[in-house]
Amino acid sequence: MNLSVGIDIGGTNTAFGLVTDNGEILAQSSIPTSGHADFQAFADAVSEGIRQLLGTIEQPCKLSGIGIGAANGNYFSGCIENAANLPWKGLVKIVEAFKNQFGVPVFLTNDANAAAIGEMVYGGAKGMTDFIEITLGTGLGSGIVTGGKMLYGHDGFAGECGHVIVERGGRDCGCGRKGCLETYVSATGVVRTATELLAKRNIDSELRSIPNSELTALKVSQAASRGDAIAKEVFEFTGEMLGRALADFVAITSPQAIFLFGGLAKAGEILFEPVRRSMEANMLNIFKNKTQVLPSQLGDNAAILGASALVLANL
Amino acid sequence: MNLSVGIDIGGTNTAFGLVTDNGEILAQSSIPTSGHADFQAFADAVSEGIRQLLGTIEQPCKLSGIGIGAANGNYFSGCIENAANLPWKGLVKIVEAFKNQFGVPVFLTNDANAAAIGEMVYGGAKGMTDFIEITLGTGLGSGIVTGGKMLYGHDGFAGECGHVIVERGGRDCGCGRKGCLETYVSATGVVRTATELLAKRNIDSELRSIPNSELTALKVSQAASRGDAIAKEVFEFTGEMLGRALADFVAITSPQAIFLFGGLAKAGEILFEPVRRSMEANMLNIFKNKTQVLPSQLGDNAAILGASALVLANL
Repeated sequence: MNLSVGIDIGGTNTAFGLVTDNGEILAQSSIPTSGHADFQAFADAVSEGIRQLLGTIEQPCKLSGIGIGAANGNYFSGCIENAANLPWKGLVKIVEAFKNQFGVPVFLTNDANAAAIGEMVYGGAKGMTDFIEITLGTGLGSGIVTGGKMLYGHDGFAGECGHVIVERGGRDCGCGRKGCLETYVSATGVVRTATELLAKRNIDSELRSIPNSELTALKVSQAASRGDAIAKEVFEFTGEMLGRALADFVAITSPQAIFLFGGLAKAGEILFEPVRRSMEANMLNIFKNKTQVLPSQLGDNAAILGASALVLANL
Repeated sequence: MNLSVGIDIGGTNTAFGLVTDNGEILAQSSIPTSGHADFQAFADAVSEGIRQLLGTIEQPCKLSGIGIGAANGNYFSGCIENAANLPWKGLVKIVEAFKNQFGVPVFLTNDANAAAIGEMVYGGAKGMTDFIEITLGTGLGSGIVTGGKMLYGHDGFAGECGHVIVERGGRDCGCGRKGCLETYVSATGVVRTATELLAKRNIDSELRSIPNSELTALKVSQAASRGDAIAKEVFEFTGEMLGRALADFVAITSPQAIFLFGGLAKAGEILFEPVRRSMEANMLNIFKNKTQVLPSQLGDNAAILGASALVLANL
């Protein structure tokens, strides 16, 4: 039996698991990402965890390779490059570190690309050659697949769709610019829109009783499902903004489908319906009614699956 | 000696030529695109013209294939699909028609993609795997190459960068929507900007003596080179708008270079300088100072070369 290892390095935890070629996770575990003496100590700890998981597999198995998803993970260089939310500074030679530990092929990419590859290998994009995966979390990430291949660009950093500017001079973005898509369409974007509408509208809302610092996209979506007018308008606006941007992305890469992944995508039709409506309303004629907007079919273990799928996609 | 045929089908004329694998055009000719009884009569006339050119070659030669560039030419279907500016309606099975005539492989794509492939095979993008070709004519076309492959999308229509919306509710576009990039950045966009500035500014300009219907991008660029303040502002604005859009395109496909092709690109630094400045000013940090904006290195025979390069790129 062939097994791949998927490692998902998040700001808080690093999850890893053993995955069969069918996408079944046989064993998984996680450790905190921070608190290690240095990067090597972290890599040693993850490696030790992987060896323990391998020890639990009773059937004979062969390790095909290791796939790693991490913010700012660069497919070409094999390094995590200046990731703001991870404890290691500068260039971290993570592919080299795990090759040294296991002597198998190791592949790295960023978390959004890993989700896209997971969608292609194990999820809703099976058999598709052209699609976009949009990951909606604190920010907005994206992985673009064209002609059956991950679009990396010349430097490995393609697919920063969250930083396309959708409103000139708009909301301040963490990247230092203004009006980026992710300042409107993301979990934090939803909270900002809610805050803006609480100022703009002069009607009651259950959101008015929540301090701004405690407002979350989940609370807004729950209020919307209870019929709160402002919360509903928040999702209408979020969908409008995402739909406009998707119409532009379709004009550029003409995908068969766009998958929405992550916490915000779980809001369901309250988000998807205005996204589809706005996308079609803004679409160039030749692309109308051709591109599906779908929820990701990767489940709760998406991050490990996506990372492990890098191995199958590359070997 | 291997020869490819390149056929460029324009609204007015159809040019065709015999091209060596080194990109040398050994013979070329053209016929009017309109005025034939039907599409078959047109294809027969072009085929006859190609046979006459082949008759002029004295060395022994082998025809490798035929490449065709045409508005709305679809690589996947081999059909010209609903081209507004060509005399044939609906789906035109052009690849089939030329296969029947010559019994060699025939490839079709749209004119902007053909220019991109020409740039890659014979021009400034030799050896590049990731670049964008922007064609500036009446409209704005684009061909995107990623990972060494033409980006076609699932339906063959990817790369419609001219119809990304850069100004919500902006200028009316021929596509029926408002604010598309090509309404600002194209030969016609330059004329519209000049007209707008003649209304907005209250200063002298040699452009004021030209009737609106006779204003052209070339006249604006000539006035700019003579120091006309409004004409200079036109190019400053055009460059600003294109640079903003390019910064977004870089965030999506991360190309090594962007080539500007077509009449407007011949305006030179008066266009390139503000384009580069605006692109860098709007660029996400990780992409700054990585992407070159360059003039196309395809010369006057770009259309035939680009079409013929389809053969080399596909065989």
